Amino acid sequence: QLTQLISAAFIPKLLAGKKILMTAGPTYEAIDAVRGITNRSSGKMGYAICQAALEMGAEVVLVSGPTALATPHDAQRIDVQSAAQMYNAVKQHVAACDIFIAVAAVADYRVAQVSEQKIKKSAAPLTLELLPNPDILASVAALANPPYCVGFAAESENLATYAEQKRLAKRLPLLVGNIAQQAIGSDDNELILFDDAGMHPLPRADKLTLARQLMQYIAQHYEGDFS
Amino acid sequence: QLTQLISAAFIPKLLAGKKILMTAGPTYEAIDAVRGITNRSSGKMGYAICQAALEMGAEVVLVSGPTALATPHDAQRIDVQSAAQMYNAVKQHVAACDIFIAVAAVADYRVAQVSEQKIKKSAAPLTLELLPNPDILASVAALANPPYCVGFAAESENLATYAEQKRLAKRLPLLVGNIAQQAIGSDDNELILFDDAGMHPLPRADKLTLARQLMQYIAQHYEGDFS
Repeated sequence: QLTQLISAAFIPKLLAGKKILMTAGPTYEAIDAVRGITNRSSGKMGYAICQAALEMGAEVVLVSGPTALATPHDAQRIDVQSAAQMYNAVKQHVAACDIFIAVAAVADYRVAQVSEQKIKKSAAPLTLELLPNPDILASVAALANPPYCVGFAAESENLATYAEQKRLAKRLPLLVGNIAQQAIGSDDNELILFDDAGMHPLPRADKLTLARQLMQYIAQHYEGDFS
Repeated sequence: QLTQLISAAFIPKLLAGKKILMTAGPTYEAIDAVRGITNRSSGKMGYAICQAALEMGAEVVLVSGPTALATPHDAQRIDVQSAAQMYNAVKQHVAACDIFIAVAAVADYRVAQVSEQKIKKSAAPLTLELLPNPDILASVAALANPPYCVGFAAESENLATYAEQKRLAKRLPLLVGNIAQQAIGSDDNELILFDDAGMHPLPRADKLTLARQLMQYIAQHYEGDFS
């Protein structure tokens, strides 16, 4: 931790004065008073990116789903549960930001009929109707004057194809791909950056190391998109 | 923490030589490679009970769903995800135990068709078919020579009725009721013990205090059921 603090002190403040809005962690979609749908995201990759952005001098608003992680020092953290709550928090803060990084594993679906009371167990099968959630990242990227938008794609197969499709469909300057099974919950990861120039792999390393490399890449590339 | 250690040293070893098997935390039922159904249980009540049992001299096997909690010192912890995995771990250890305490918020339902790959998002609604899970506690209580079985009921309404119904249906000597909305994820709780003698409320307190009162009650009552 001390060595981390000391090495952070020598990192060039490439993002001084920049405002970053980001999301991290899973979301939780209630089924009833106690049950819900979530995913295996631990929030570690997002929190590492938050940490790396702060080290480079950025101001960071971190909209976080439920995680057990400590808030990086100096981040402004907003806790949410559902995708709808995350979307509202993002809408409130997006106008002020220069860069938007969507790391959260947002639930693609919510439960159509949320029960306020705990559903009693019965021996019969149960059917859950799910409705698609709004796409937070696509909505931000489609704004008239959008921030520089960075997306994440966690895929269990066909990463390169799905990631580039996602980047083009959402019109993102930069999309970060990773393999869900390797990435989620783990301390290490392996990233592939997709942008107009092609694919840039960041080899397997701990998440803070990767986060610093990613933020370095963002700092070097995002100005170009505004010029 | 130090005061906790010192006060623990003065707790009478009422459960010395006793073997306790217990479950704690939520379970996680996979929908696909990354998504799943879980519940708001933090595992705090179960881990506090494990701690209290250890303080009283018991040997504890703790079968735990996914939580962010540290293992109580001297507990043998077995990590599981799904209700089926929890059931298997319990079956492996139940023969050796004197007391079984089922604190885990076990998923009542699992997904009928688990997808190995991440289900791609589409604009259409999705339907999830759920099947009821085996009832771990009822199965243990129905053994020919069962341990002393303690159940938990977290209800969002009608606690007294539902809890006593559950106790009689599963033939448990002792059932611990709590209000889901007050209990789950919180540091405090309020318990009501249901047994053949009636209802015994344990007023609101932190979970370790309640856990010690509960284990005291169990230590004083369970021998009777064997004699």
